[in-house]
Amino acid sequence: MNGPLADRFKAGFRRHAAGVALVVGETPDGPVGVTVSSLSSVSAEPPLLSFSLARTSSAGPRLVGCDALAVFVLAATQADLAAAYADREAERFTPGQGWVREGGRLVLPDAVATFRGRPGHVIEAGGSWVVLLEVERVDLGAAAPPLVHHDRAYWVPAELPRTRALRAAEG
Amino acid sequence: MNGPLADRFKAGFRRHAAGVALVVGETPDGPVGVTVSSLSSVSAEPPLLSFSLARTSSAGPRLVGCDALAVFVLAATQADLAAAYADREAERFTPGQGWVREGGRLVLPDAVATFRGRPGHVIEAGGSWVVLLEVERVDLGAAAPPLVHHDRAYWVPAELPRTRALRAAEG
Repeated sequence: MNGPLADRFKAGFRRHAAGVALVVGETPDGPVGVTVSSLSSVSAEPPLLSFSLARTSSAGPRLVGCDALAVFVLAATQADLAAAYADREAERFTPGQGWVREGGRLVLPDAVATFRGRPGHVIEAGGSWVVLLEVERVDLGAAAPPLVHHDRAYWVPAELPRTRALRAAEG
Repeated sequence: MNGPLADRFKAGFRRHAAGVALVVGETPDGPVGVTVSSLSSVSAEPPLLSFSLARTSSAGPRLVGCDALAVFVLAATQADLAAAYADREAERFTPGQGWVREGGRLVLPDAVATFRGRPGHVIEAGGSWVVLLEVERVDLGAAAPPLVHHDRAYWVPAELPRTRALRAAEG
């Protein structure tokens, strides 16, 4: 009976929208990275964020074993990068993808924000791990439009007619 | 030293984009609801989703005490509803907001998807709870554009020029 419910669950989440990020860790075999659409803010004080990783993925088990992880929030201009790191076979960490090394750290200058920290709590949940990252450093990129994932495609936010009025209402 | 880091953390998440949902539970004092921008899919088999609730919020403690919760993924036309349930003082569950009762359940017909289930795991994380909801039922609404939250305002996804090509790449 789980199949139909799982299918409806996936169909429900295709209706949802999400920002897109790359989660990257350094391993003895080199850097590992994967695209996630599950990034969210959990707490600002102390700063904690969460994302989930598939336990059956190639990258998931290697990333949860890392002492430190970086989360790069992608700009709308980085859809190619999101697609490449969502694809098990695509090439990773090529110079053409925009990566640079600064003080030993991998940096993606076009990311709209970069969060770095330690996986403080890794929760096994169904076919995934939910990772709570204790954030120790935040780098802000350009204030560019972020990449959005929705209905198996990539999008960019467009302003609603009433956005400015709602800014005031939400504070 | 946490203040500046917390400020940078918040600034980083203002660069991020997120779908918007209402989390609703029924309590002895009536229904309780709050807007979240932390909804994400964790696992399809078994179907699990996550969101976070501020521990200092009015709704958070009441919602984590509920045996069953409903998560309504909002359409881009529902920005007013999102703003109302993000505001501690605004009126809730008024007929004008579109709520109907069906078989005792609160239903929001214009939501693009509704997930119902039980909080299986509630994790205290900084100032919030991360709730893992064991999903038992999914209702799909119209395939309408979802509401997006970004930079303290509401948005709607607009197609990127290359979206169709990327659909094929991501599968």
